[in-house]
Amino acid sequence: MRLDEIAALVGGRLDGPPDVEITGVAALEAALPGTITFVADQARASELAATQAAAAIVGEDVSAAGLPVVRAAQPYAAFVRVVEVLHPRARPAAGRHPSAVVAPTAEVPADAHVGPHVVVGEGVRLGARAVLHAGACLYDDVGAGGDFTMHAGAVVREGTRIGHRVVVHAGAVVGSDGFGYLPTGDLPRPIPQIGIVRLEDDVEIGANAAVDRAALGVTVIGRGTKIDDLVMVAHGCAVGEACLLAGQVGLAGGTRLGRGVMLGGQVGSAGHLAIGDGAMVAAKSGISGDLAAGGVYGGIPAQPIQRWRRAVSAAGRVSSLLRRVRRLERALGAAADDDES
Amino acid sequence: MRLDEIAALVGGRLDGPPDVEITGVAALEAALPGTITFVADQARASELAATQAAAAIVGEDVSAAGLPVVRAAQPYAAFVRVVEVLHPRARPAAGRHPSAVVAPTAEVPADAHVGPHVVVGEGVRLGARAVLHAGACLYDDVGAGGDFTMHAGAVVREGTRIGHRVVVHAGAVVGSDGFGYLPTGDLPRPIPQIGIVRLEDDVEIGANAAVDRAALGVTVIGRGTKIDDLVMVAHGCAVGEACLLAGQVGLAGGTRLGRGVMLGGQVGSAGHLAIGDGAMVAAKSGISGDLAAGGVYGGIPAQPIQRWRRAVSAAGRVSSLLRRVRRLERALGAAADDDES
Amino acid sequence: MRLDEIAALVGGRLDGPPDVEITGVAALEAALPGTITFVADQARASELAATQAAAAIVGEDVSAAGLPVVRAAQPYAAFVRVVEVLHPRARPAAGRHPSAVVAPTAEVPADAHVGPHVVVGEGVRLGARAVLHAGACLYDDVGAGGDFTMHAGAVVREGTRIGHRVVVHAGAVVGSDGFGYLPTGDLPRPIPQIGIVRLEDDVEIGANAAVDRAALGVTVIGRGTKIDDLVMVAHGCAVGEACLLAGQVGLAGGTRLGRGVMLGGQVGSAGHLAIGDGAMVAAKSGISGDLAAGGVYGGIPAQPIQRWRRAVSAAGRVSSLLRRVRRLERALGAAADDDES
Repeated sequence: MRLDEIAALVGGRLDGPPDVEITGVAALEAALPGTITFVADQARASELAATQAAAAIVGEDVSAAGLPVVRAAQPYAAFVRVVEVLHPRARPAAGRHPSAVVAPTAEVPADAHVGPHVVVGEGVRLGARAVLHAGACLYDDVGAGGDFTMHAGAVVREGTRIGHRVVVHAGAVVGSDGFGYLPTGDLPRPIPQIGIVRLEDDVEIGANAAVDRAALGVTVIGRGTKIDDLVMVAHGCAVGEACLLAGQVGLAGGTRLGRGVMLGGQVGSAGHLAIGDGAMVAAKSGISGDLAAGGVYGGIPAQPIQRWRRAVSAAGRVSSLLRRVRRLERALGAAADDDES
Repeated sequence: MRLDEIAALVGGRLDGPPDVEITGVAALEAALPGTITFVADQARASELAATQAAAAIVGEDVSAAGLPVVRAAQPYAAFVRVVEVLHPRARPAAGRHPSAVVAPTAEVPADAHVGPHVVVGEGVRLGARAVLHAGACLYDDVGAGGDFTMHAGAVVREGTRIGHRVVVHAGAVVGSDGFGYLPTGDLPRPIPQIGIVRLEDDVEIGANAAVDRAALGVTVIGRGTKIDDLVMVAHGCAVGEACLLAGQVGLAGGTRLGRGVMLGGQVGSAGHLAIGDGAMVAAKSGISGDLAAGGVYGGIPAQPIQRWRRAVSAAGRVSSLLRRVRRLERALGAAADDDES
Repeated sequence: MRLDEIAALVGGRLDGPPDVEITGVAALEAALPGTITFVADQARASELAATQAAAAIVGEDVSAAGLPVVRAAQPYAAFVRVVEVLHPRARPAAGRHPSAVVAPTAEVPADAHVGPHVVVGEGVRLGARAVLHAGACLYDDVGAGGDFTMHAGAVVREGTRIGHRVVVHAGAVVGSDGFGYLPTGDLPRPIPQIGIVRLEDDVEIGANAAVDRAALGVTVIGRGTKIDDLVMVAHGCAVGEACLLAGQVGLAGGTRLGRGVMLGGQVGSAGHLAIGDGAMVAAKSGISGDLAAGGVYGGIPAQPIQRWRRAVSAAGRVSSLLRRVRRLERALGAAADDDES
């Protein structure tokens, strides 16, 4: 691809010769000759002088030290567009591997890729261009829209409803039984988990994640929501659209997330609470109550992040406070008879 | 099922016509015509007026606004009983799928369900009515009691001992090598992990959980203990009977839990410590020492939960304390020479 | 094995009859007749009097109460050596199970063990003595050195580079797509993840762990590094040599670890930061900034562990401080008009 074609692709402004040939993309620190890299802001622009890249996509005001550049208002988005075009992911060929076991009542379109050792249960209906990698397993009565992708070893349990363009990564489990027990009697008694999971359009479920079916009703992952590896979504959660749940997040049963909620890695939430639209929660936080829309939260328990930062900072000053109070008490002759335990 | 039959089933008191026909169960907020729902206490009873449900199971003193009800002392347990009867989970048919690979020395009863691509190793012995879903894999010399269920893609490593009515959910791994290394030399040197795992009767292991074999001896999960998704139990732990380990809990090597211990989501425990019978630990806590039986704990490190709550609350008051101490110092003319770093 | 042979094997000093026959190893508290156990220090030496073990490996100054012993400077390392010799793990026999699906262009040596339902993609190249347990799945173009072991259900995605003597445990996923999205537009837009993962020699990846491919470039797990179950390593991390990452650790994208870093269970790290050689981080900590080499850290956010311990201890004293300050204010007649919220 020529540099002027890239400029046209991303709607950017070319600053250099139009006929530079670009064969791939690369990170700034590891760029090979012939590649295009990118620099979003001036801070790293000095590294462009040393790069082997043939060109760069840069922000509009970044000085580029003689390297041919394409300037764009949103340089990272422009770069992503170039990656998509220069490095398209190959779609596995249509066809059904002879070792796959597809139930007679399943509807699998002819353009689907069904890999080795895939299992498709009774009554499953898959949309166009489904891709089931090796060993993917669909229990009975799963329905999925177009362009559904399951990676190796992923499991979708019975009755799950799946929208268009959904991706379930390797080892993920969708629709396992929720964790519900009655504490009565000698041993915990399982509460039947007869609900389902619904994954709406454009949802992505990360590797080895687990999304449990509802006890009654539906566990919902909203349209466009992306779930990272090793995340757990418990029974009966309702996750809104366009949320981002980073690695190892855990949502207890019945948690409700609004639109565009962002949870950092290892965040945990207690169950049966509501997190408002656009709320952001810092990594490792523990959510123990409702969070208002639009807020930024952190800590265990999660609180407005400025408050949490103050509390963390203040915690480091308690030793000093103790000394100062002791001095004041001595100055006042106060009896130090307080119980400090 | 008629409403009077339901009343008889749960030992409840019918308050309404006996011949209402019930075809299923549903949550209060999503009940369809013909279903039975439930309300445990008065707080949600007003919602019964708007439900489409045909009937409800309610607590003994709940006012039910004209809806036919069955009154029960433990309404949720009664509802669960109805779910069990109206929505029994179908047991997969007995039989061995031709793609399954069962070692010649394995003993698999004729009434077992052995799904596609299942692997059963040498010397495995399974009890009556085993259900091995697609792709389940048993290494050599596993022994299991009656009614053993393995979901798709679950793995049980060699030598594991399994009781009756055990369920291993999809993607779970039982008996993987413990994480033990000698720090000597250039690289960490693996300590052979030659022990096993024992899952006692009525144990349940959640999706994508991992229970490691002991270095020497046995990792034990006690009778009736339920383990949620993505939990890790390290080598040599001894988990007592009737414990509940919620999602993403992690137990380091050699942790010992008594009977009926309840650990909230994402709780972690340091190794080689003991948690007493019936102890409860709040989600996200970090256990760093022994916990006494019957206590309720929280925090990092885990402490009696009232103490932890006071500490959390107090942490928010340190900034205010700093201001007040500064004012006292000024009033006393004290030199503010204290190092606050 | 005779006791004098064991003494010779570990370079220890025999203290007892040379011809005691040893048939296995066992933990001190569960030793059977004929086994050898070990005691590292005097604290547990009294238990030797009650053991059924035939002999013990002990530290050089441990008194052994009449039991035949082998004395060694590093008794645990000596014991591990004996375990290795007395309990060698059987290597599965070479051969390819007929149900395995190996692409025509894959290079799998004749001495490899390829279990049932294994899938090996196009262009895969495996070194000598590879062991692929049941259902292991290698996507296209994976390259691995000698003595590569994959346990059941493990998945290695396309293009992964693997060194010698690497072990990937059951259910682990190596090379899944990193979690990268542009927040622009209606829904998060996936950033193509076109990098790879490289596992260097002697790396071990725990059960159900996930190591993601880089967006661009390479996610690296350094030589000899051991990763426990359910750990997540996000895209673009560079983990150094000889690190130990305990269970459920999570590294956000672009984290860089030096040599010999040790992270306790459930530690999380923010991305794009550096942890120096030999740093140790206590379980459950949250790393939010660079950590210097050789330090010991703890807490959320992670800080030098002594500072964190002081802060935890101080937090318990704030309630007492509040009372003391109130008393001082009364003594001074100060107006208690401060906002304590």
